[in-house]
Amino acid sequence: MNQNPIPRVPPQTPDFQGLIARLKAVLPAHCILSRIEDTRPYECDGLSLYRCLPALVVLPENEQQVIAVMQACKALDIPIVARGAGTGLSGGAMPHAQGVVLGLSKLNRIIGIDPESATAVVQPGVRNLAISEAAAAHGLYYAPDPSSQIACSIGGNVAENSGGVHCLKYGLTVHNVLRVRVVTIDGNVLELGAEAPDAPGLDLLAVFIGSEGMLGVVTEVTVKLIPRPACARVVMASFASVEAAGQAVTNIIAAGIIPAGLEMMDKRAIHMVEPFVCAGYDLEAAAILLCESDGTQDEVDDEIERMEAVFRGAGATRLQVSASEAERLKFWAGRKNAFPAAGRISPDYYCMDGTIPRRHLARVLGAIEQMEDEYGLRCANVFHAGDGNLHPLIMFDSNKPAEVERAEKFGASILELCVQVGGTVTGEHGVGIEKINQMCVQFKPEELGAFAAVKAAFDPYGLLNPEKVIPTLARCAEYGKMHVHGGDISFPELPRF
Amino acid sequence: MNQNPIPRVPPQTPDFQGLIARLKAVLPAHCILSRIEDTRPYECDGLSLYRCLPALVVLPENEQQVIAVMQACKALDIPIVARGAGTGLSGGAMPHAQGVVLGLSKLNRIIGIDPESATAVVQPGVRNLAISEAAAAHGLYYAPDPSSQIACSIGGNVAENSGGVHCLKYGLTVHNVLRVRVVTIDGNVLELGAEAPDAPGLDLLAVFIGSEGMLGVVTEVTVKLIPRPACARVVMASFASVEAAGQAVTNIIAAGIIPAGLEMMDKRAIHMVEPFVCAGYDLEAAAILLCESDGTQDEVDDEIERMEAVFRGAGATRLQVSASEAERLKFWAGRKNAFPAAGRISPDYYCMDGTIPRRHLARVLGAIEQMEDEYGLRCANVFHAGDGNLHPLIMFDSNKPAEVERAEKFGASILELCVQVGGTVTGEHGVGIEKINQMCVQFKPEELGAFAAVKAAFDPYGLLNPEKVIPTLARCAEYGKMHVHGGDISFPELPRF
Repeated sequence: MNQNPIPRVPPQTPDFQGLIARLKAVLPAHCILSRIEDTRPYECDGLSLYRCLPALVVLPENEQQVIAVMQACKALDIPIVARGAGTGLSGGAMPHAQGVVLGLSKLNRIIGIDPESATAVVQPGVRNLAISEAAAAHGLYYAPDPSSQIACSIGGNVAENSGGVHCLKYGLTVHNVLRVRVVTIDGNVLELGAEAPDAPGLDLLAVFIGSEGMLGVVTEVTVKLIPRPACARVVMASFASVEAAGQAVTNIIAAGIIPAGLEMMDKRAIHMVEPFVCAGYDLEAAAILLCESDGTQDEVDDEIERMEAVFRGAGATRLQVSASEAERLKFWAGRKNAFPAAGRISPDYYCMDGTIPRRHLARVLGAIEQMEDEYGLRCANVFHAGDGNLHPLIMFDSNKPAEVERAEKFGASILELCVQVGGTVTGEHGVGIEKINQMCVQFKPEELGAFAAVKAAFDPYGLLNPEKVIPTLARCAEYGKMHVHGGDISFPELPRF
Repeated sequence: MNQNPIPRVPPQTPDFQGLIARLKAVLPAHCILSRIEDTRPYECDGLSLYRCLPALVVLPENEQQVIAVMQACKALDIPIVARGAGTGLSGGAMPHAQGVVLGLSKLNRIIGIDPESATAVVQPGVRNLAISEAAAAHGLYYAPDPSSQIACSIGGNVAENSGGVHCLKYGLTVHNVLRVRVVTIDGNVLELGAEAPDAPGLDLLAVFIGSEGMLGVVTEVTVKLIPRPACARVVMASFASVEAAGQAVTNIIAAGIIPAGLEMMDKRAIHMVEPFVCAGYDLEAAAILLCESDGTQDEVDDEIERMEAVFRGAGATRLQVSASEAERLKFWAGRKNAFPAAGRISPDYYCMDGTIPRRHLARVLGAIEQMEDEYGLRCANVFHAGDGNLHPLIMFDSNKPAEVERAEKFGASILELCVQVGGTVTGEHGVGIEKINQMCVQFKPEELGAFAAVKAAFDPYGLLNPEKVIPTLARCAEYGKMHVHGGDISFPELPRF
């Protein structure tokens, strides 16, 4: 491999006046924001714990202007942080103090929908849900559905490889995007991917999706659309212990069922949500599962029956199947409103995002419960159980600096626990600035070197979203954690903790 | 992007004696083959049109020996061509005259199967089918099923991102491999991927899968297993024209059905296969479709009924549903034996592999028919119709040099036609040496530059499978084709030809 590249040393006094002059020649004045009152809204993304005022915000209106911004910043050695709707949860769009925020919100056109090939071509600023709304006329929709889908943009989804409650069956962004147009830091336009299942050459589409703005800026996305299922129903199952609920998840998968969604909420999450949403959740349960089936009426009837049988066999204490579309949406409303519900009972909350092998679920939740005492903070757990993707919500008060620090450490401990049991430090929210230290725990120096080498292949100047995602080895040495990668390598023996 | 790297200039007289001396210190003598009678079997892979005797063949027995081979070759600047079972169809494992063939056949151990997480960890030399055989005790199997699955190895499948008749529903290798262990040219071991749906950092697993031996050598593969469906049945449908069959394929997908397999054979393929296999194919049909449903008994009954309705609506002239497992296998036997059947009616055949948007099927087959006259050679068409993946079989006689040349040109013309209609030059067989010129037609110089930069990030010395897959710009200039990338870009208007 190429060496781990030396992190860039930015110029001491970047020439922002020179940059503005260059940009004014190619962008309308209203697309260039430099006054603090205009740049303030861009100081953070959905991870509001970390903020940084950008030197400049540019909002190009077309690909040609994106190219011009890239070329100007490269010429003046000024970092660029791309931004979609700013709903990301790991600080991927947090500005660089000496850099430019390149907002894609004005590239918001749906270029075309082709019902025959079941694809849509859209600009990066198009909202996730807007694609499905536009495709509805053809009975089609775009499957990945992050909780933020009303607001988040497809460009941001590409940057973070976003998921959602239905990605167990329908996949992440990487499984639903066929092609992207990308502008490189040199101002070249690349088309990555194809409408075919496999594209010739290296799979640079997959490497671009989830690359968090480090490789280039996307200006056009071709997504796969799928037929809206005729019918969907949800089983809600209660369990007397987290262990039993975890076993039920394992048994569902082992039975060869791939639910459209399979979510778990623990007792604290249920009690947090129910008074707020009145979804009819069982307040006696230690954990509930929401398990969705979709397809034709017959398929759904058959699958729901099989799901119920599995849950009964796993000791479900209560079972309820949605009797109408309204009830199905009510069941989901609780899960989808877990974050705002946390906001009602705590001044602030910190949403973590790690993955674990499903079989370790009960143990990991047990360990998180112990951490609550250790850090003196409460934590509610919502969980894409089918995917093994954990979303603990740590509650704290940001007016108490000691609590902020404890919340951060609590979050870091959860992520490192995920690595220990053979999981990963992010399921769908990305690494950004939030989990950069945990990358040192997840990966060996040689693996971080491979990331850095591929990053440098696209961006040898280190200008695109610098100091995010890939830690330098010096940073890892400072973080000083033991490398625990491969907690689950001694397969099929499992680690005990 | 980094510059398009300058192709390596190999040493005029590589020090093979020095290499053998080094290797003898770390590998048993029987693992090092240098006599021509021993190296002869390695002179080509499944693309026997191109042959080259390697200077040396090494057959390491464990990862430590793979590391030693990589380090020795790097030290002496000697190219390495990795090889699995040698069943590849694009010359990816064709030796380098000044290089070493690194055969992985002795790394053939199934390390473990975990039925609970539905995964298997295997060495690269394990045969594709052997994984499913070992998993059968747990009711599980490994889904991708290339025609060569009895012989081909999982390491080769990773290198080529292999598909098969069931990849429409179950995905290619990239969708069914969770993690790989890789040895780099520096002798470092990387672990790429994770058991989780999304791995943190850049998706180097996806970039490695299908990288045709250019980035590193795989020493361990973790694959996803899925439950063997309880039931599978096939509808065989006849059509009076290729157009009607193509429309039926479009209608199946538009109806929201994702068949387990959806294959088409044209009249010539049917007539080639039927006398050989006696599968009961309709000799009156212009094209037949084989459309498989799998799942529970009820699901299959329901889906088969929907498939039949779609085919009837599209004008099927004959419909037959397999009445037993034996009949299902008989229906498939014809399709799976298309290649050997071609061998019976022609001294040699050349299997092409391109993809097209499904909607262009009839036109492309019409154009191929015209090319038969132009090149004076016959061509039978089998087709992963659901994926848009075309496999024309061009028949020729390799004892007639002019026919060999015409067959190559015929193949190249088909691939370039695929690009023209918005498709790609390979669906599942890889680029290798076979399609390297067509990469110039498929991609812009900037895109080839991106491939080369990522290749150089892993292998800055250009030692791993050199002169394959990624053409130099000089080669493209020589090939002298107009760049037609984006034949389908003016979406949703379609190109006419």
